[in-house]
Amino acid sequence: MITLNLIGIGTGNPDHLTFGAVKAMNAADLILLPRKGEEKSDLIDLRRGICAQLLTEPVRIVEYDVPRRAERQDYVGAVLDWHDAIAALWMEQIVRHLPDGGTLALLVWGDPSLYDSSLRIAGRLPGVTVRVIPGITSVQALTAAHAICLNDLAEPVLITTGRRLREQGWPEGADSIVVMLDGRCAFQTVPAEGVDIWWGAYLAMPQEAIMCGPLGVVGGDIVRRRAALRKEHGWIMDIYLLRRRRG
Amino acid sequence: MITLNLIGIGTGNPDHLTFGAVKAMNAADLILLPRKGEEKSDLIDLRRGICAQLLTEPVRIVEYDVPRRAERQDYVGAVLDWHDAIAALWMEQIVRHLPDGGTLALLVWGDPSLYDSSLRIAGRLPGVTVRVIPGITSVQALTAAHAICLNDLAEPVLITTGRRLREQGWPEGADSIVVMLDGRCAFQTVPAEGVDIWWGAYLAMPQEAIMCGPLGVVGGDIVRRRAALRKEHGWIMDIYLLRRRRG
Ligand SMILES: C[S@@+](CC[C@H](N)C(=O)[O-])C[C@H]1O[C@@H](n2cnc3c(N)ncnc32)[C@H](O)[C@@H]1O
Ligand SMILES: C[S@@+](CC[C@H](N)C(=O)[O-])C[C@H]1O[C@@H](n2cnc3c(N)ncnc32)[C@H](O)[C@@H]1O
Repeated sequence: MITLNLIGIGTGNPDHLTFGAVKAMNAADLILLPRKGEEKSDLIDLRRGICAQLLTEPVRIVEYDVPRRAERQDYVGAVLDWHDAIAALWMEQIVRHLPDGGTLALLVWGDPSLYDSSLRIAGRLPGVTVRVIPGITSVQALTAAHAICLNDLAEPVLITTGRRLREQGWPEGADSIVVMLDGRCAFQTVPAEGVDIWWGAYLAMPQEAIMCGPLGVVGGDIVRRRAALRKEHGWIMDIYLLRRRRG
Repeated sequence: MITLNLIGIGTGNPDHLTFGAVKAMNAADLILLPRKGEEKSDLIDLRRGICAQLLTEPVRIVEYDVPRRAERQDYVGAVLDWHDAIAALWMEQIVRHLPDGGTLALLVWGDPSLYDSSLRIAGRLPGVTVRVIPGITSVQALTAAHAICLNDLAEPVLITTGRRLREQGWPEGADSIVVMLDGRCAFQTVPAEGVDIWWGAYLAMPQEAIMCGPLGVVGGDIVRRRAALRKEHGWIMDIYLLRRRRG
């Protein structure tokens, strides 16, 4: 019997960790930590730190190298192949370290439900029971940093990706949209008139940077700031809320 | 100098509390707990319990009665008036208990950014600095309980209300929609063909109930189950994800 606990750890600040997350970490027999290559080594250090700080039980910690996703035209196909490869790696670790069963835990950035592949990869493991411990998402880290509401009063909000915003324009159905996974500042591709932006990078981390204002006024500054920060730190993760002014 | 900390406490399970939330609770001079009338007394008990369990500092706790929102045709107007009334109540407590300044904290259900009025009410208080401590939302409580992703791979997701779904039908722009604040099972008003539902009530609480399946198959059962649970407990909070099957 193998149980896999996918534990949401928030976006990098140990203050985001929930009691439930810490309990689930300590209840595990094995924690797998992903190594994602040099430039994002801050992120594995952070997970190592969380384990060092919060494990009070003797949990085995094993690091593994995450394969790179092929840069193919066929984005979805490349992602599916990549999930297969990671599932095989997890299975290998399970067979090696938990031959008689037990509980494996993974520390998932933010919350496991949101633009994260862990649940999809876990679904490829035969005979494994999957449990999710929710975590603070980067969406909440963004709204908390700016002390703003996600939705206008009784209005909807749409969460989408940079790729989609760039390719399909402002989506129907919502005046408030959150954009994630955007390596290329897709907000530059929408008409700025009447739109405000709340942007944040490295949210809840020591490097945190936030900016907000009318898109037409601050958009260019965000593009420049983002480039400078990315150069300085070697990597960046950012997210933003765009809202059409109403009335 | 008055600081107001809006502290997200998750959806009712103390395991949802973050270290940051507990720190902010203990750093407060005054915590205001809302009393919302008899039928939801479970919820004030829950907040009282959280304070009793987690406060290690001598923080003053004051309970206040939340006025009822007028049931007017003009929904938004009624809400705005109600926010004014609550802001006046908070101000009264600040003047009474923090005459020389200090830190007031409010324990906000889920996360303060999501369909919650605290930030809007706080914005009505002159000279008060507002800080937000993010919390686990009912959206994450839902996806965690079902161990599902919020979004399809690289696809968007829309968060909306029962009222809007009922009045405007399936929103453009997303095949995955989360519906909150729905007292009347608005999922019954959309065509069920090709749609799956993941539903949850009292998520992360001892009363938790979840159901999922094709909307056409389980929709009726959810309506009946919801009515029975509501009768049994005297109140209900529920949320659901609807997803159109693709391809
Ligand atoms: C693969 S997704 C994972 C999201 C994560 N599961 C969550 O709940 O936030 C990565 C994207 O999340 C956002 N993100 C994650 N952490 C962030 C942070 N600390 N600051 C800003 N954006 C962040 C960025 O948009 C990034 O491209
Ligand atoms: C006023 S909104 C507050 C939302 C909250 N700020 C959050 O972050 O989840 C109340 C709605 O949230 C959802 N909700 C909150 N707690 C819930 C729970 N424990 N189980 C199911 N739904 C919940 C329901 O849709 C309910 O109508």
